Amino acid sequence: MIRFYNAKILTMEEPLTVREGEIWTDGDKISYLGKSPAELPAFEREIDVNGNLLMPSFKNAHTHSAMTFLRSFAEDVPLQTWLFEKVFPYEERLTAEDVYAFDRLAILEYLASGTTAFFDMYFYPESTVQAAIESGMRAVLCGSISGTAKDVERLEEQFRKYRNVHQRIGYRLGFHAEYTSDESLHQEIAKLAQAEKEPVFTHISETRSEHDACIERHGTTPAKYLESIGIWEYGGGGFHCVWFDKEDRAVFSRNNLWAVSCPCSNAKLASGIAPLKEYLKENINLALGTDGPASNNALDPFREMYLGAVLQKLRTMDAAAIPAAAMLKAATVGSAQAMGLKDCDILAVGKQADLIEIDLHAANMQPLHHIPESLVLNGDRSNVKLTMCAGKILYEDGIYQNGINPEAILADTGKRIERLTG
Amino acid sequence: MIRFYNAKILTMEEPLTVREGEIWTDGDKISYLGKSPAELPAFEREIDVNGNLLMPSFKNAHTHSAMTFLRSFAEDVPLQTWLFEKVFPYEERLTAEDVYAFDRLAILEYLASGTTAFFDMYFYPESTVQAAIESGMRAVLCGSISGTAKDVERLEEQFRKYRNVHQRIGYRLGFHAEYTSDESLHQEIAKLAQAEKEPVFTHISETRSEHDACIERHGTTPAKYLESIGIWEYGGGGFHCVWFDKEDRAVFSRNNLWAVSCPCSNAKLASGIAPLKEYLKENINLALGTDGPASNNALDPFREMYLGAVLQKLRTMDAAAIPAAAMLKAATVGSAQAMGLKDCDILAVGKQADLIEIDLHAANMQPLHHIPESLVLNGDRSNVKLTMCAGKILYEDGIYQNGINPEAILADTGKRIERLTG
Repeated sequence: MIRFYNAKILTMEEPLTVREGEIWTDGDKISYLGKSPAELPAFEREIDVNGNLLMPSFKNAHTHSAMTFLRSFAEDVPLQTWLFEKVFPYEERLTAEDVYAFDRLAILEYLASGTTAFFDMYFYPESTVQAAIESGMRAVLCGSISGTAKDVERLEEQFRKYRNVHQRIGYRLGFHAEYTSDESLHQEIAKLAQAEKEPVFTHISETRSEHDACIERHGTTPAKYLESIGIWEYGGGGFHCVWFDKEDRAVFSRNNLWAVSCPCSNAKLASGIAPLKEYLKENINLALGTDGPASNNALDPFREMYLGAVLQKLRTMDAAAIPAAAMLKAATVGSAQAMGLKDCDILAVGKQADLIEIDLHAANMQPLHHIPESLVLNGDRSNVKLTMCAGKILYEDGIYQNGINPEAILADTGKRIERLTG
Repeated sequence: MIRFYNAKILTMEEPLTVREGEIWTDGDKISYLGKSPAELPAFEREIDVNGNLLMPSFKNAHTHSAMTFLRSFAEDVPLQTWLFEKVFPYEERLTAEDVYAFDRLAILEYLASGTTAFFDMYFYPESTVQAAIESGMRAVLCGSISGTAKDVERLEEQFRKYRNVHQRIGYRLGFHAEYTSDESLHQEIAKLAQAEKEPVFTHISETRSEHDACIERHGTTPAKYLESIGIWEYGGGGFHCVWFDKEDRAVFSRNNLWAVSCPCSNAKLASGIAPLKEYLKENINLALGTDGPASNNALDPFREMYLGAVLQKLRTMDAAAIPAAAMLKAATVGSAQAMGLKDCDILAVGKQADLIEIDLHAANMQPLHHIPESLVLNGDRSNVKLTMCAGKILYEDGIYQNGINPEAILADTGKRIERLTG
């Protein structure tokens, strides 16, 4: 059992309030949350949080983690040049061992940023599973097939292989995007999802051209087309959702789908600004993701929350466009629920001990007028003092724990990057 | 003498290149920059930089530092409500001692962010001078008068008092804004600037309504109006410059003025996106500032650079809108030159030793494909390992140096904030 005391606690239950107290963890769960009791049991470790904040860890609801190897490889070039000349040819060279190595590099960044789970779409899922399990993090794999009906066999195989492979690994049905697959694939996925009563995720309406091309192909938008196929009978959602119109949002609302927004990637690639104000107003489930580190370039939940908030102010020319705290909810509770991590959303007894300590004594967090808003508008990852996943401390005071060796990871990835891009 | 060796060095001379070598400082200056020589003199301290980056420190070219006390005090409210109900009434209660205390809080954040100089517009300049001198930082005060011709006396008095008060303190003529002063004030400032051969700075075209109201009042835009008055015969510039049209930019170009952009403040207050792409294309001098911490909410050069870059991509819907490295130049060389800190712009022998060490081993800075671009697109202040101003190390590995005591500063500001806003 680990005891955190002298804490401010933001459980992320609504309405958001910061209370004083302590949290105990027992194994992978939270076993106590409240005021300091008169009598204490024996603890393995007692941590004086010194008035700092304990809150749920961040979950990254859309990423391609292993793309760390292409971060900053090509900047300031148009999107098509970047993708076809600077990404695809290099990804073809990747081995399973490379993906494992580059996932481990991403995990260093996740843990230092207070992120304990990531929803990953990439090649060689076995590598991602291995990297996540070893590190102590959680990963939820998302199917990323493209092509035609026959490709769904591979998806089903992965689904059966990974759905129960480990308590910290999940699997969600998914495909790359409407524009990289045909109707036979969509129909086959719909059948699988309906048979298994599973949600389905996909990239959707990220760029205007992709959104418009679907209208040309199918006579309607991606959201409306995919709903008509029946892929979302058991829920799911979409990554990006930038170019959604009112009817697309209605599709997401009536099917209880998750809109996973990636504000930084959409900004870097000039894809656009998703209408988050409307999502919130219409009570659409909102989660946040970073997208891959080559198109972001950070794996940083603070930057996503910040950009998510301020871009709505600019888009609507209204400083009060959305409440900043809505972004905090999306990056923690929302992302956890989108990924199916129902026990990792809020801090409460019986929930998984996936939590972080935020240094409220850092100059940028002072004064403490409104802590949830400050996390979004002035917080950054330099404020993450401790990251715990499933009751294990994985990062503390700048030092990785649980056998994670950053020097070895950097040496390994350095050699691989030299081979792949040198 | 201090020796930094095993370094990557980005001097910020153009064209930008990262070289390997070492830097020595002697007193407040850089005394050597180059390869490791065969023979070494005796040093007071030798620092193995371990392959990390040495580069010029950041300079914050527009701020109201002491507004730290109102950071996160009122969020998600419309601009006018915020300003008239949540800022002005509280600022009226400030004493000189309060401003000193809140400047010291800001300085904690500046140093942890790699910032060694700030261009400050606020009440009680004596307090800001004291806080900057004590900490080891540089401050350049900017006149902030409003009103009529008679108010220029106070400006002139401050100018004479502070211009040569200390080697790390500067003073620039300035006034709050066209919309808070009348033509008699502008004419009087023009006379003073011409007599003293001094540049003049002011808030300009920050919001559309302010820009348009000037057109109604004076029949022309603020930039064209102020040029016609003759305030810029010896240069200067403007803070924000969001709503400039082509002719306003021509005013700045032909008078060699500095456009000081504040992307994060302009986003938070929904003021708009300044046309930085056009500024760069038209070779207008560009600097970056944070604005005050109540309207940002951070004093973070990394966030300004990042937002400056990605907002241009969104504004123009072109992922290649501006080179990311242009933001790095604006935040270092540009801001230093705008503030008149001609010896603090680049790293070179004889220049002031105002430099920072960036941890390139941090996961978010890996791999090192393009370091200048990475600083803008994936760097953040958690990467600042050491901050040196005028040859003195003021911050290193998370610890403040030079007698700066963060606990004492937080205790002091905490009490004052309670009194002012409690």
